[in-house]
This record gives sequence, C-alpha cells and structure tokens, in this order.
Amino acid sequence: METRVALLGQGYVATTLAVGLERIKAGAIKAYGVPFGFPEDFIRAPKIKDIRIVHSVDVDVSKIGKTLYEVGKMYFPDLEIPETLKEVRVSKGIHLQSTRGLPIKAEGLDEEMSLRDAVERLVSEWEKAKVDVIVNVITTEKAPGIRSWEKLEEAIKRNGEWEDGRLPASYAYYYAAMLYAETVKPVAFVNAIPVTLAKDDAAVAAAAQRNSLVLGDDGASGATPLTSDLLEHLAERNRYVRGVVQFNIGGNLDFLALLDPERNKAKETTKSSIVKDILGYDAPHFIKPTGYLEPLGDKKFVSMHIEYISFNGAVDELIVNARINDSPALAGLLVDAIRTAKIALEHGEKGTVYEINAFFMKNPGPSTGKSISRIVAYQLLIDWLLRHEALEKIPRYSVHTFIEDLARLRKVA
Amino acid sequence: METRVALLGQGYVATTLAVGLERIKAGAIKAYGVPFGFPEDFIRAPKIKDIRIVHSVDVDVSKIGKTLYEVGKMYFPDLEIPETLKEVRVSKGIHLQSTRGLPIKAEGLDEEMSLRDAVERLVSEWEKAKVDVIVNVITTEKAPGIRSWEKLEEAIKRNGEWEDGRLPASYAYYYAAMLYAETVKPVAFVNAIPVTLAKDDAAVAAAAQRNSLVLGDDGASGATPLTSDLLEHLAERNRYVRGVVQFNIGGNLDFLALLDPERNKAKETTKSSIVKDILGYDAPHFIKPTGYLEPLGDKKFVSMHIEYISFNGAVDELIVNARINDSPALAGLLVDAIRTAKIALEHGEKGTVYEINAFFMKNPGPSTGKSISRIVAYQLLIDWLLRHEALEKIPRYSVHTFIEDLARLRKVA
Amino acid sequence: METRVALLGQGYVATTLAVGLERIKAGAIKAYGVPFGFPEDFIRAPKIKDIRIVHSVDVDVSKIGKTLYEVGKMYFPDLEIPETLKEVRVSKGIHLQSTRGLPIKAEGLDEEMSLRDAVERLVSEWEKAKVDVIVNVITTEKAPGIRSWEKLEEAIKRNGEWEDGRLPASYAYYYAAMLYAETVKPVAFVNAIPVTLAKDDAAVAAAAQRNSLVLGDDGASGATPLTSDLLEHLAERNRYVRGVVQFNIGGNLDFLALLDPERNKAKETTKSSIVKDILGYDAPHFIKPTGYLEPLGDKKFVSMHIEYISFNGAVDELIVNARINDSPALAGLLVDAIRTAKIALEHGEKGTVYEINAFFMKNPGPSTGKSISRIVAYQLLIDWLLRHEALEKIPRYSVHTFIEDLARLRKVA
Amino acid sequence: METRVALLGQGYVATTLAVGLERIKAGAIKAYGVPFGFPEDFIRAPKIKDIRIVHSVDVDVSKIGKTLYEVGKMYFPDLEIPETLKEVRVSKGIHLQSTRGLPIKAEGLDEEMSLRDAVERLVSEWEKAKVDVIVNVITTEKAPGIRSWEKLEEAIKRNGEWEDGRLPASYAYYYAAMLYAETVKPVAFVNAIPVTLAKDDAAVAAAAQRNSLVLGDDGASGATPLTSDLLEHLAERNRYVRGVVQFNIGGNLDFLALLDPERNKAKETTKSSIVKDILGYDAPHFIKPTGYLEPLGDKKFVSMHIEYISFNGAVDELIVNARINDSPALAGLLVDAIRTAKIALEHGEKGTVYEINAFFMKNPGPSTGKSISRIVAYQLLIDWLLRHEALEKIPRYSVHTFIEDLARLRKVA
Repeated sequence: METRVALLGQGYVATTLAVGLERIKAGAIKAYGVPFGFPEDFIRAPKIKDIRIVHSVDVDVSKIGKTLYEVGKMYFPDLEIPETLKEVRVSKGIHLQSTRGLPIKAEGLDEEMSLRDAVERLVSEWEKAKVDVIVNVITTEKAPGIRSWEKLEEAIKRNGEWEDGRLPASYAYYYAAMLYAETVKPVAFVNAIPVTLAKDDAAVAAAAQRNSLVLGDDGASGATPLTSDLLEHLAERNRYVRGVVQFNIGGNLDFLALLDPERNKAKETTKSSIVKDILGYDAPHFIKPTGYLEPLGDKKFVSMHIEYISFNGAVDELIVNARINDSPALAGLLVDAIRTAKIALEHGEKGTVYEINAFFMKNPGPSTGKSISRIVAYQLLIDWLLRHEALEKIPRYSVHTFIEDLARLRKVA
Repeated sequence: METRVALLGQGYVATTLAVGLERIKAGAIKAYGVPFGFPEDFIRAPKIKDIRIVHSVDVDVSKIGKTLYEVGKMYFPDLEIPETLKEVRVSKGIHLQSTRGLPIKAEGLDEEMSLRDAVERLVSEWEKAKVDVIVNVITTEKAPGIRSWEKLEEAIKRNGEWEDGRLPASYAYYYAAMLYAETVKPVAFVNAIPVTLAKDDAAVAAAAQRNSLVLGDDGASGATPLTSDLLEHLAERNRYVRGVVQFNIGGNLDFLALLDPERNKAKETTKSSIVKDILGYDAPHFIKPTGYLEPLGDKKFVSMHIEYISFNGAVDELIVNARINDSPALAGLLVDAIRTAKIALEHGEKGTVYEINAFFMKNPGPSTGKSISRIVAYQLLIDWLLRHEALEKIPRYSVHTFIEDLARLRKVA
Repeated sequence: METRVALLGQGYVATTLAVGLERIKAGAIKAYGVPFGFPEDFIRAPKIKDIRIVHSVDVDVSKIGKTLYEVGKMYFPDLEIPETLKEVRVSKGIHLQSTRGLPIKAEGLDEEMSLRDAVERLVSEWEKAKVDVIVNVITTEKAPGIRSWEKLEEAIKRNGEWEDGRLPASYAYYYAAMLYAETVKPVAFVNAIPVTLAKDDAAVAAAAQRNSLVLGDDGASGATPLTSDLLEHLAERNRYVRGVVQFNIGGNLDFLALLDPERNKAKETTKSSIVKDILGYDAPHFIKPTGYLEPLGDKKFVSMHIEYISFNGAVDELIVNARINDSPALAGLLVDAIRTAKIALEHGEKGTVYEINAFFMKNPGPSTGKSISRIVAYQLLIDWLLRHEALEKIPRYSVHTFIEDLARLRKVA
Repeated sequence: METRVALLGQGYVATTLAVGLERIKAGAIKAYGVPFGFPEDFIRAPKIKDIRIVHSVDVDVSKIGKTLYEVGKMYFPDLEIPETLKEVRVSKGIHLQSTRGLPIKAEGLDEEMSLRDAVERLVSEWEKAKVDVIVNVITTEKAPGIRSWEKLEEAIKRNGEWEDGRLPASYAYYYAAMLYAETVKPVAFVNAIPVTLAKDDAAVAAAAQRNSLVLGDDGASGATPLTSDLLEHLAERNRYVRGVVQFNIGGNLDFLALLDPERNKAKETTKSSIVKDILGYDAPHFIKPTGYLEPLGDKKFVSMHIEYISFNGAVDELIVNARINDSPALAGLLVDAIRTAKIALEHGEKGTVYEINAFFMKNPGPSTGKSISRIVAYQLLIDWLLRHEALEKIPRYSVHTFIEDLARLRKVA
C-alpha cells in the first residue's frame, strides 16, 4: 500500500524523516523511535517501506532546487545519505513572510506570482507526484484559527491580506491541500506544528466535505509527554504536587523562532494545559520553551523540577535533566502518523480522527478533543488500529490483552 | 467496618504509618500519598478512619514498653503527635538474631522462653487485640522461601534451628499468624519487606487452608516504580534503551542493613527484573541499593541515568535525581494495602490476591505472578475493587471509564 | 568595637540577617555561612557579637510600626525569634514608587511630606540611632547611575522628578546617607542590590569627600559565583567550553520583581559578564533569572548545563542542579561585608574599597573594577584584612600561607 | 627539546594520548585538555610537538605486535588516525598476572623467560628507543608500597615471588626503569595509576640515587578534582557540609577491574581523603567507584550530592551529574606531566617533585606530600615552572600576576 508523501518545510524534522526512512528501508538502521516499527513492523499496511517522500517545498534559497540528498548532506555531513534521496528536489514554496525575523534568505512563489497562482502551481506539482499525505513542518508561526472558509478564500484572492495582518503560510498550504482534494483526490494533511488546524471547526469541515482528513495539532514530541507521564505516576499514588518547573533550551531554528514572543506564546499554552488535565487540580507550574543557545544544536537541554507532598506531610522532589534530539523524536512519530493517516483515508474516514490525534499530537483535534494521559491515548490508538484491522499483532501489553487477562483472571479467581 | 491492625517492627515505616494515620483522622493533614484517599476517600469501607493500630511488637530495647506516642516523639521530635497513640504500647517481639550486625540493642521473647511459647504468647496478645490484619515491616532479612510447612513447624519446635542456619524472624511471625488464623479467626498478613512469603507456595497454601490471606512481597515504594514508568514511556515510543543506571543511598536503618551483602542481594533481584519485564529485552542495567550515609536520614538520594536510541540513530539521555522520603512512601501505600486486605477477607478470598499484590508490591505473589507495568497494575486493582463493590466512585481516568468511552466513541465514529 | 547598622528594606534578606545574627549571638546556632565566622570568629574586631541592628525602614504597610521580632515571626513562624529583636521597630521609608507592579500595599514618607523633608527625617532618625553602616537591600530596581551630584540634589528638591522619569529610591537613600555623613559622622553604605552606586564615579566621589564609603554593587550570592568557580575549574585544565546554560527560578519577592523586564535586564548583565572574564573567550551562554513560581519560596531552583571539549576532541558535559536558600546566602555574606566596612571606616579609608567589593559583590566598584575569579578575590580580601591587622589568624590555606610555603619549599628543594 | 616517551599498557588512556598527540601535531585538532597547551603553547620547551611516543608494551595478545596505528583504529574506528603512528609497534610486556579476573587473553615476557631476563630485554629495547620518560598506565592493581629495594631485587630474581603473594607488574616495570637509569641514562617514571610509587620512600630514594625521577601517584582526572573544587567553593563561604555522595559508573576496562574489591579499595582511599583535606573537618561522605555498565564505554556517568547548612540554619543542596570521557581527561594531563617531567630531568632534579605531583596527581608524593586544593596546586605548579624559566608567559590570572597586582593596588590605595 504505497503512501506518497509531500513535505512542507524541508528543515531539520523533514530532513531527519527523509534520511531516517531511507536508511531504515536500506537496512542501515533499525526502526527505533517509530512506535509500531520495532522489534518488527506491527502495522499490516502500509509498511514502513511503503512510504515514499515524493515532493518537498521550502522557501530557504539555500535549499530550493537542491535534491533531498544534498539537503541531507547539509544537515548530516558525517552520515552516509542514501542515494534514493537524489530523486526528489526541493521546490519553491509559499512564503507569506513566515520566516520574518529569522536569519534565513527566503523566497516564495507568492513573491513572483499571485498567491492564487502559487497555490495552483503547488496543486499541479502534487498532482504530478500523486500525493496521498501532506506533512506540515514549516517553522512555528502564529495562526489562531481559520474560523471561516470564505474569509480564507478571500485572503488567497487578496494575495495574503487577512484580518488584522498577514495570512499564515500554513493556511495557504492548507487551502492548497483542500483544492487538491477537490480537484485531484482525497488527501490527509498532517499538521505537526502549533498552528490551529485540526482543532479549527472550519478546517475540519472543509476536509470532511472533500472526503479528506486533517490531523493535528502540534506533534507530541519533546519534554511535555514525559512530564505528563511523570505527573500520571504521582497522581496514581496521590502524591500532591506543589509545583512543576520545566525549562527547555535548544539551538535549532525552532528555538530561535521562539525568541519571538508571539511564536513562544503558542507553545506555552500547549505545554501548560497538561498539568490540570493530568492531576485534576491546577498545581502551580512554570512550563515554557525558555531559550536559544546555538551550540546545543538540535539536541535540546531540558530541566524539570517537581516538588510534591507524600504521606504524613513529607516533602519529596524529582529533578529530571534530559538531552533530547528534537527532530528525530518528532520524525519517528511522523512515520506512524503518516501510516495511520493513510489507513484512515483508505477506510474513508473524513474530517479528523481523535484517536490518532490523541496519541500523536499535543493539541488533539477536533475542537472538543480533550488532552488525555499519554498512556490512555496509547491504548485508544491501539484499539482504533485493531478496529481497522491494521495491526499484525499487538506490540505491547495493552488494554486488549488486559481485558482478556481480566476475563481469564476472573475465571481463575 | 473497623479494621484492627498489628504491626511487626515499630521502626520508621510503622511509626510513620501510625502517626500519619492518626493525624489524618484528626484532620491535621490530608490523605496525600494514600492512593485511594484523596481528594476524597474513594473506598466505600473500610474508611481510613476505620483503621486502628491495636498491637505492635519490636525487639529494640529502647522501644519495648513505650507507647506509640513515645516512639512517635523519638522519630518526629518536632511534630505534634496525636494523643490517641498513647493507647498502644510496644510489646517484645521475636528476635532470632534478625538485627545481627546492626547497631541496635535487641531482646526477643525467644531469648527468655522457648520459641513455641513465644509464638503462643504473641497469638494470645493478638487475640486480646482482635487483630484483622498483620503488617510485616521488620528489618530486611534473608529469607528465600519456606518450602515446606512441616520443616517450618519443626524449626519452631527446635527454637529456630533451620536448614543451613537460623529461622528468619519473618517466618516465625508468619507461623504465629497462621496459628492465630487456626485458633482465633482468619487474618490477612501483609508482607511489605523482601522476604519470600506471598511468592512461596507453602505459605500461600497454609493461608488458604485457614481461610486467610498472605499479601506481598516487598512494598512497591521507592525509585523502582518510577524507573518502571519511565521505561514504559520509552517503550511506547519504541526508543531503544542502551543502558539503565539507578543508584540509591539513604541514612535510615534499612540502608544500613543493606551494607550486609546478603540483605542487599535480596533487594537487587527485585529491582533488576523490571527492565526486561517492561522493555521486552534485557537492556544492560545497574540497579542496586548502593550505599549508606547517615545524614541523609530517611530521605534518600536517588540518581538514575537512561541512555536510549531514537529515530535515525540519535542518542538521547535522561537523568533523574530524586530526594524521596522512604518511609512515608511505603506507609501511604500500606494504608490502602491494609484496606484492600480487609475487603478481601470480608469477601472470603483466601491464599493470596494477585490484583492487590501487583499494584502494592514489587514481587507480586503467587509464585506465578508476573511483574507488570505499574500503569496496568493500577487498572487491574481498580477493576478488582469495582468487582468487589468497594469503590464509591472511580478516582481517575481508568480502564473502565476508558472502555465506556470506547463504546461511546465507536458509536460516534 | 560596636558596629551599629541601619537596614533599608526589611524584606527576606534583612530579616534573615537580623534573626540569624541574634541567634548566633544567643548561641542558638553556629555562624555557618559567615565567611570569617566559623569554626571561630577570625576577625579581630568587630566581632559578630559587636554588630547591632539599630534602625530599619520599609514601605510595606504590613511591616511599618512592627518590631523586628514581629517581622521575624512573619517570615519564620516556626522559629524561636530572639527577644532582643523587640528593641527595633520598622520606620516608614522612602517609596518613590519602587514597589510598582508588586503585590504590596506600600506607603512612603515621601507621600506625606516633601522628599527633602523625608530625607531629613531619616537622617535625624539615624543620628539618634548612631548609625555606622547602612545596608541597602530594598527590592531590585532600575538605576543606571547617578552621573552628577547636582542633578541628584535637584531631583531631591523636585520631589523625585529625575531625568526621564522617577528617582530610584536607592538614590534618595544614598543622598540621605551622604547628608548624614556631612552633618553627623562618616558612614559606610553597603549596596547589596543591582543598582549602580559603587561603580558610579559621582557616588564614590561624594562618599570620598565626606570621609565615607560606598561598597557594592549587588551581593555575590546565588548561582553565579558557583558557575564562576566551575568555569575556573575547566579553564585551569584547558577544557574548551562550548556552551553554558544557567536557569534560575524562585518564589520570593525578588523573583517576582524580575518578571518586570527592566529589573531583569539589570540582573542579566551582571550574570553574563563572568563567562568571558573567567574563560578568556566569550563562550556562548544563556545565563538569566528565568522565572517565578510561588511555592518555591525563598529556596530557588537552579539548573546549569556546561558542555566542553576535552583532549582528543572528546565532548563532556556537566549538569548542576541546586536548591539554594536565597536570602541566607546573601545575609551570611552581609555579616562580613558590614564588618569589613566598619574596619575600613576605622582605618579612614574613603570612597570605595575594591578588595572588599571584589569578594562580596558581583559588580565590584569602582567603575574600573574588574570582575575576577572568586578564588583570587578571596585571597585579595585576606591580604587586605592582614594589611589592616584585622585577622586573628588566617582561616584557610591562603596565598599568604602559600607564599611562606613556597619560601620553605624553595629552601628544601 | 625532543622528549622520547615509553608507554606501559597500550589501553584506552595510552592510545588516546598517542592519537591525540599526533592529531594535535598534524593540526587536526586544538590542544584542548592540555593545561598549558591552549590558546597557545605556553611552555617554552619541550613543545607539544617535541613529544614522541617511541616505545610501547602491553600483555593483551590482541595488541602485541600491532602498530599504534592499528591499535588506534581498534579504539577509534571512526577517526582518521595519523599515519605517523605506524612507526611504533606494541612489544610484549611483563604480565605477572596483573590482568587476573579480566576478560583479556594475556601473555607476558615473564611467561617465556625468567623475570630478570624479561626486565633486561625491556631495558635494552628502551635503550634502542632512547627513552626519556616512561608512563605507567597499566590496569589498576593492588600495590601498597615497595618498602625495601633489597626485597624488590629478590622478588625479581625469584620470578615475581614477593611477600604474601605476587609482585605487582608496576614494580617490575619500575625496577626495569631504575636499571635503565643505572645503565643507560637518567629517566622520569610517571606513575598515573593508584599503585604506591612516588609516595614510597624506597622508590623515591632509588630514583634519587640514579639522578632520576618518579612522579605520581594516580593521575588527577575524573570527578574527584571537581568535587574538590566544589568543596573549596563552599568552604570559602563557610557553608557547613552535612554530607557528600559521589557515584561513578563507567564501561571501560578500568571500571571492570574495579569490580574486584581489592582494586576498588585502592581507589576509594584516594577519593575519600579530599573531604577532610579541603573542609578541615571530616564531613560524612560516600565517595566510591560504584559500578560497571558496558554501554557507557569510556564516557562515565558521575552523580554527586552535597548537602550543606548556610546562614541562619538554612539547608541547601547541590546535585551534580556529569558525563565525562575518562581517558581523554587523563591523557590531556599526561601531555603536560610528561613535559614537566622532562623539564625537571633537564634541571637535574631527582627523587620526586612535589609541585608537579600536587597538580597532576591525586596522591602526590613524596610520602609527606599533603593533598591540597587544586587551585593552590595550580599556582604552585606555575611558580615551579617560572622558577625553571619554562613558561613563555603566564597562561591565566595567577598568584604571580596577583602579587604584582597587590603591589600596584597598595600603591594606589
């Protein structure tokens, strides 16, 4: 079941995804970091080897026109990059000033033609590439919701003039995806950055009308899922959390972008909501992307402090420090987000799929989607996969083995 | 549903349990650290306020004859100790050299009468106190299994001569508990230390024959459950663990006792088994109680290092440091271990109960009991409680709310 | 040699200083945290017991009129506060809106009389109290230098109108101190907060003209001196630092104040300069007061990450986490800052004293004063104390014992 | 000033030293980690480029007969190893069962000829290679002192029979070195492992009689010097240390060897003595090499916990975690230990040199040599280098710049 993928933004995550995928296919590495990919490929179809990156756009002039092989060399000079990546070349994407303030020389199609023409150009490229799934990993931008499809159409016509400012590039890409769905075939749009799409009713409705899918928002990589599971651990023992601190600092473009307070604000909201969601009370917390330090590169430094009260008033504390490679953590998840997106498409699901979003995303759509503990989300996803007959077998001890065990145990008891 | 408890070993854990319980009853503190005790008391009966400590033994001469109030003052000089603890006085227990090598002046009943008489004395004291649940929290000792009830009886007759050495004090106490069950009424024996009892077939059979229960072994407090949940977090994302280090150092008697290699060995086994149980492969690990440093007191220092491989070969690392009050962590769990033990007794369960052991214990009996992820164990216990109609309502998002949600979601989908 | 001290700002630091001092005098605690106070009092005179807090001002209405005993109880409800603190009562201080934005109900003398009259009132109170040393520990405020004494005088006359805004309260207090020096007797003004005074030429000249002293700026407590010594450690082994991260979060008023970007900026400058000063090259760094979280209280959480290159290109990393009580760290240093200030006064020194500032302050005055490694600063101070015959004996292995040892070793060699 | 070096034990440290040196000479890397090698080569002569590894022995059959280039490839398969290392080939060394218990197939000269002959063979090889400095980096072994030269000579004659057991291989090598000094020319023996040599009076006397030098014992790399400087930091502020914990775990042969309690004991003593030496009182501490975990490789994990009392009884804590490449840390120091050894030889020093040992070694000889703070040791070494006119200029702010500054400051004051 071939799954043809278009990438929006050929940055660190997209390049790690492309390089990692081809190395797994070539047998150079194991599928570590792919939730259903190890110790064997548990998903029936598509297999990891069925995923093909067939299209890519970016606005960074140092990448436009280069093959993914060449871009791979830029990011991983010491790695043997698979030759298969020479087949895809980075096209010029839509800019709409999305890189404003960043040290990037950028150019977009929208600077040499009307935005409407740019969108159509993209659709025709995707058509040629026979795209099934589009993955959005452009730089974090402010984008608080589309609200009305009409206003979006108007903004496209007006070359990006939108409400109180500029149309976010993600929304122009989303518009292009929907035009593709209308004129070519249904598509799944996987939104891995913190712009509002799968949580936006207008965006979800637009996808549903076109038998298409929008999955998102904001890939659940990084320190927040870890914090979530640590809080779950404490909550199950009724340890009362007095305060939570979580610092993050990194040296990739994403952290640099977060120096911009508006971009930062978007991230903070996502991160902070988990405390109350998991604990049931709003423990005081400071959870923010905190800084940028170039030499850390893609391997961020995370520091966490949790103080809690145990039995008889005892005060305990947990300190967690982590060095985490940011892009691989997300890219590994995207492999299976792409596969589940394809499965959902094949089964004719439309709009969005909460069970997929709840595990893969920090802000799971639709707008009514609650943020739940990772552990429960994992079980929810397995159940969804089983219902869609998509699993060869269950990868780990899950709620389903559990329910069977319960039945067995009840008989025994 | 009054629940009358006898304590074996009036050390740090038992004293924290006694003091904490009375402070909760008096409204001085909240029931933090008691899994089903906060934000309200979720268990229908017995309530926390129904638990009464009615008997206590120790072999430390500085404690024998003192009230629990006085012992409470020894451990917590700055705390206001509830007056209700003046009602129980520490009796002399069975020694059998269990404190050998420790800086304690100890005396046991077995030093002034035959072991058989000592056991009977104890049974008659428990009878007067109308004991329901006996909690074993004496100092960690080496005790690799009873194997045969006949040999145990013989060792009692021979004043503790046993196989290749001395009868462990825990086994003499267990024998007393079974005599109590025979001659007075069924009892639940909660074994919170790393001697083999609930995992020993002979011990479980002895309890079953007397309509009684043995729950254990080794209370699941401390750093190991945290390590277990961290490994689960990584496993669900298929991050490949290259190595796990876990150091522990504390300044209480338990750590001092572990300087003895034999006592230490018992702990190490418990701690190490989780790696393969959770990950599915035996990642290299060093997980050991490591040292004793007096000024740390009951608040141990834990340091953990986990290195793993993420997508595309990236190497990440987690470092966890914790300051954890050892005794309250266990004492809080014991509150609900006692309550579930009582519930099981009331429902006529006998032998042992895996669902209780799996959550509260590191080495869950019976002998066939697998060590499972804490998270699944938590759900298993909730299911057990629901089946016994013991919960007022479900405390957190659980497998049952989950199964209902699944049904609802399936309808929606 | 009695040393009479006036405090500006009866907050956490001042109250810790007052309470700690009296507890040391009463023999309730040892002089831990006082550089020259333990294991014996190494300074010849004044002894710790010679220090007397004789005056205090604040603008917080919940403190004005209370005795230091009562304020002590507010901060340390569980501590036995020495009765001697009943002798001093908090007077109303100068406000000048210095608490703007903070959750404090504040009132100042300047709100009920002219600023000139307020200053004179203060001087007359100090006169009655026979003050020798004035310690400034009001809340951090923006104050980039006095520049000209004439402009300061004019601002006093104009009730605090100053240049592009409001006169910093610290400068009004400093003006009062100089008026005191003129009309009563020479005084030492110890500036422990990050406003520019000892590094301001006009302020130092004003002190010199009045045979007085200004010492500062910004007390060298907290994480920065620790970072400084860690960098020194690496530099002596020629390990090449690739990046330094230092996060700080606390829950006292000082951290709350730093939420204000202007106050924060002042701190950041101080902290960042050490990297180049110590290493000799400007390693990339992120060193900032980072956040406020109320439950942390006065015990801040510090997290540091240092990555460096060792021999043969190996990359190592250091991660430091600390829980540090902020106010005691500074208060302990202030005890000896006050004593050395008094010694300097007695010896007729005037203006400022670099050797004192270099050890006790983050930004050592005068304006030409370089920030040097703590270790060298420590030796410099010992040398200064020896030259002033102020030491009973040398407290630790120092440059002087070292020079003697060198001589001896040379003879031996 | 060419300096010709013979290596004893071509393990991780020796190979890192050889490879790193040649890469520095070739301009491939900077001299990071060499105390006097960066930002320029501060030592007048020998320069780093003057050091030549000319001889090497080992007992591991997988290395004997290989060139250093081939051994370099074994340890650093991904690194470009300089071709110059093809010039030296590993000779068979003296075994004397020094690898007992380790997973190494070992063979020694002493197994194919008499020990006396083996020693002479070695001397003649060194003679051909014109060796100036011999560096001992064989695996840690138990060796508590030679005590008498006669007994050593006898043990050589008796093929290694010695007192209560086997002659340590280090002592046989040392005997060979002294024979070389007698018959060829003076030599410096740098003992970088924790066997007693520079602290042994008989060994030092033997060197002195031969116009030679023995420097040692136990290279001051690793976590202990860091702990030492952290304690110094606290001591200068009179913070009272309540307890110190320091764990170490690694995956190289050195950690594997330390699983042997006897070898471990040697290390522990070295590490523990610093607490009292620096603080002046014996704070409770647990400082031990703790474990072995293969995947950590040469990059050990260190965890440290320090709890101390600050002013007014406040309790603070420091937690340090480090990932440190063990071998480069030592190899970088050895570069300058070799150079200072050569300088001392050139100046006709004999026996041992405390000033060199104090900085480079954990257990500085001679037997009367005190362990002092690293910082003071650094100054002591600079002074020694200045006295020998060995420095181009002073690399950092030192006691000498300091003394000049003092003089200047006194004039100014």
